Amino acid sequence: MQIFAPAKTTASSFEKYESLIKDAIDAVHKREHYTPFPEMPSPADYGEGAEAAQKSAFEAQLGNKFERLLQSSNSWMESDEESPYTGKALKISYPVFSDVESYIAASQKANEKWKLADAKTRAGLLVETLHQLKSHFYELAFATMHTTGQSYLMSFQASGPHAADRALESIALGYSELTRFADKISWEKPAGKFNLKLEKFGMNIGRGLALAIGCSTFPTWNTLPGVYASLITGNAVIVKPHPKAIYPIALVIGVIQSVLKGNGFDPNLVLLASDKSDSQITKKLAEHPAVKIIDFTGSNSFGNYVEGLPGKVVFTEKAGVNSIIIDSIDDVEAMAKNIAFSISLYSGQMCTAPQNIYVPESGIAAKDGNVSFDDVKKAIVEQTRGLVEHPKAGHAVAGAIQSKATMERVLKAKDIGGKVLLENKAISNPEFPDAHTQSPIIIELNRDSRSLVKGEMFGPIVFIIPTKDTNESLELASKAAREHGAITCSAYTQNEDTMHKIALEMAEAGTPVSFNLTGGVYVNQNAGFSDFHVTGGNPAGNASFTNPEFIVKRFVRVQSRIFVK
Amino acid sequence: MQIFAPAKTTASSFEKYESLIKDAIDAVHKREHYTPFPEMPSPADYGEGAEAAQKSAFEAQLGNKFERLLQSSNSWMESDEESPYTGKALKISYPVFSDVESYIAASQKANEKWKLADAKTRAGLLVETLHQLKSHFYELAFATMHTTGQSYLMSFQASGPHAADRALESIALGYSELTRFADKISWEKPAGKFNLKLEKFGMNIGRGLALAIGCSTFPTWNTLPGVYASLITGNAVIVKPHPKAIYPIALVIGVIQSVLKGNGFDPNLVLLASDKSDSQITKKLAEHPAVKIIDFTGSNSFGNYVEGLPGKVVFTEKAGVNSIIIDSIDDVEAMAKNIAFSISLYSGQMCTAPQNIYVPESGIAAKDGNVSFDDVKKAIVEQTRGLVEHPKAGHAVAGAIQSKATMERVLKAKDIGGKVLLENKAISNPEFPDAHTQSPIIIELNRDSRSLVKGEMFGPIVFIIPTKDTNESLELASKAAREHGAITCSAYTQNEDTMHKIALEMAEAGTPVSFNLTGGVYVNQNAGFSDFHVTGGNPAGNASFTNPEFIVKRFVRVQSRIFVK
Repeated sequence: MQIFAPAKTTASSFEKYESLIKDAIDAVHKREHYTPFPEMPSPADYGEGAEAAQKSAFEAQLGNKFERLLQSSNSWMESDEESPYTGKALKISYPVFSDVESYIAASQKANEKWKLADAKTRAGLLVETLHQLKSHFYELAFATMHTTGQSYLMSFQASGPHAADRALESIALGYSELTRFADKISWEKPAGKFNLKLEKFGMNIGRGLALAIGCSTFPTWNTLPGVYASLITGNAVIVKPHPKAIYPIALVIGVIQSVLKGNGFDPNLVLLASDKSDSQITKKLAEHPAVKIIDFTGSNSFGNYVEGLPGKVVFTEKAGVNSIIIDSIDDVEAMAKNIAFSISLYSGQMCTAPQNIYVPESGIAAKDGNVSFDDVKKAIVEQTRGLVEHPKAGHAVAGAIQSKATMERVLKAKDIGGKVLLENKAISNPEFPDAHTQSPIIIELNRDSRSLVKGEMFGPIVFIIPTKDTNESLELASKAAREHGAITCSAYTQNEDTMHKIALEMAEAGTPVSFNLTGGVYVNQNAGFSDFHVTGGNPAGNASFTNPEFIVKRFVRVQSRIFVK
Repeated sequence: MQIFAPAKTTASSFEKYESLIKDAIDAVHKREHYTPFPEMPSPADYGEGAEAAQKSAFEAQLGNKFERLLQSSNSWMESDEESPYTGKALKISYPVFSDVESYIAASQKANEKWKLADAKTRAGLLVETLHQLKSHFYELAFATMHTTGQSYLMSFQASGPHAADRALESIALGYSELTRFADKISWEKPAGKFNLKLEKFGMNIGRGLALAIGCSTFPTWNTLPGVYASLITGNAVIVKPHPKAIYPIALVIGVIQSVLKGNGFDPNLVLLASDKSDSQITKKLAEHPAVKIIDFTGSNSFGNYVEGLPGKVVFTEKAGVNSIIIDSIDDVEAMAKNIAFSISLYSGQMCTAPQNIYVPESGIAAKDGNVSFDDVKKAIVEQTRGLVEHPKAGHAVAGAIQSKATMERVLKAKDIGGKVLLENKAISNPEFPDAHTQSPIIIELNRDSRSLVKGEMFGPIVFIIPTKDTNESLELASKAAREHGAITCSAYTQNEDTMHKIALEMAEAGTPVSFNLTGGVYVNQNAGFSDFHVTGGNPAGNASFTNPEFIVKRFVRVQSRIFVK
């Protein structure tokens, strides 16, 4: 009897990208960084005239139907999106199905063929989608800027090359896991006069339909890792973007659907499921029994709800309270400059932005002797003021405030308690005079009022908190990480033992530490192919971009066997 | 500044076992089988006189304190264990702490040093424990036989070499995952005139205290994979055995504690937490906030409870309904003989034992033409009768019935409904005239009474179920797997398309299929280093021995970084 063969490779893209995929798998493990997608918006990399052409495409899209999706949706919905830079509605309509069941049915049908495609076919096509996405990075930047409020440069980097890096990580690690074990096994066992023989065959079976729930601040960077991880492991995906940030992910889905269709797969394999703020379909989708995998980025309350849904494989990135521990440093100004940038970048709307700065009240050791608590806080305040008041750098670093809730939180922050060291205020932006902006508010607490900071206060709100000593700083930072979650921690110390202690205790609270950052490296940055983003080890999220767990929970391995006479 | 170094290898065992560990990692991925522990009780492998000496040790243990544990427990508890072969209580006492908090505190303290040991130290010491366990395989066999009711040969194999194989899989895959990513990374990024540089360091942080909850039928085989997976990833383990099957796992824990102590680690790192049937401490342990990882083998109801505990990483093997699909076969007698053995082996008390046999009512194709439904069932019944009535093979294959509940279920099975084709009855065992034994009952259902089989009926209870055709057989088998879980499926078909279809549809129901087993290979057997045991893809369990998910969920990877000027 002929033995059944594994699935055939049906698309030629794998050959085209084979060496890139192998390099990516290698890079994922070496973690020294790998940048197939250049991160600067440069004609040398992305084509002469591409920026202007895509700016025109962006402008032409405003006020119109988004017609670049190939999904079989049957009606149109005008979104709630509005630009934090102009305050105006984007007035873009997206194709929608009239009910949740239609999304589910279309996804399931589309997956019938995809689930049988082998790892090479899937990996090849998915890399092709990223390759084609490159031609849309500028439009993606404008779409991101005018939904999230990120600056143009950050919008380009985060939604384009950095998101593509993270997607490629998922493809690489996914391909690696799918092909990890022998597919065809000849098993023999001595049994006296003859050997017992079995032929065994491994199959990877996707867990089932995946739902990716997006956030309003990083609509592609936070969504693509889960989407590509689900796809490479054989699962159809429904993407439910934040109602205020649809355009960027719609662009990506359009490209994916086009590549799928061009290669004989059903474009409904990845569906955009847009909704409006006052009639969201997220819970209906999440609770649907056919949905087996959920990726979520967003608030703690919704994240906890999703994590608690029975029978689902859930990956979350929620909120965290990120700390800075200042113990000792040679150059206080360089440190303060770095901190000022970190707390101002995208107006503290990054999940990696620091919030609580712990400083011993006796001051810190520096190159020229002891620097007092007051001088440390003064340095941070002055550097921050200098940055946000800089006519060019100010708005370029801070971008705009994405949501009304964040704006209100900042405006009310002065009433939290404590002493306001630096007041928040609008940052002028000559190009966008109506931009919603606010510079960071810096509040000093005293040892009795430290409990005023309970968890994350999303946005440009920063606390300088006096402690007895660095041990207490570490204790408070690790406690905050354990109780409220943390995605990053920054620490300044010139003492090796203190460094070990901080690194280990924060690691045990599931938080990586960046030490002694000055110059052009910021704690906010988590690089693809080098940094794991979120550890899964504290309440800030149960998943990590991109560790093996992020991949292997999405499929099961089933080995069948045939007796050979 | 000197950069902090990764943990040092503190034990020399790694060097001793380095090549074995590398071979095991290779074998885990090739899946062609690897047997460092010979599976027959042979003096050539296990030493002249070892069997007699260890039989004496077993006999000396009965009625006495189990004094081979090094844990700091403060009192003694006589267990509820009794031999299914003699009906007598073993009257062994085990050391216990007086309360759950004491177990937790002792575990946490013991983990302070272990968590800092590197992967090499852990792997070396854990392999050493298996090496030393070899010298107890005979006693382990007697202990297993007289708690579980397994035959002597199965007791030796399952609790000794096969359990050690599974433990070694966990060590190998664990070591592989812990060392998968670079530990020390030099990261550089061009930034105009100079490069930005970071040194990065990876740490593996165990999730926290692990609890391993054992079952009454396979006290070491089902427990060791989770125990070793938790240990290799840096987590202390509390083992809560089934109150009726403590002795076998106590032996293993004694060896582990001895190796730990001999190498400067706290023996409390692995604690035996015995209890009595009427005052079990399992829920108190499972719900304790310090317990972060739970491995469970046992009933659906308790398994579902454990899976539902919030904030825990849970691995379960619960019950399943295993099917046999008979489509076509060349040699009906050979098939029937194989099935008879499979349903009689350890009296159906294996989680891999078949229960539902689906046969088209129009009969099946065989070498000599069509064989009627009646002739198929007759062949199975006759072969089973012949096996269980065989004076030597009968009791040697069937062993004894472990629990009163199973015995009662078998005795009442004739009242389920359907037509009893073969009655259950006691199997005589000359060596143990008081052994609790029952041969399989085989019940024929008709198409209207098929719903009488709702889920697993644990023990030697088998149904022969007529179907319209093989498509319907497959539909029923895959439906049972999806709804009630399944760990194995056996199928007989000579048609390649049918084989593909069965393999794929059962795989999608999370169930591996064994095709055309005759001769000496049985569906019940899942070999370490080749077969994944349970897939995690249906209600029979959410975990798999030993796939990457079984390892990677037990720790998180945290990378810290230092700015380099």
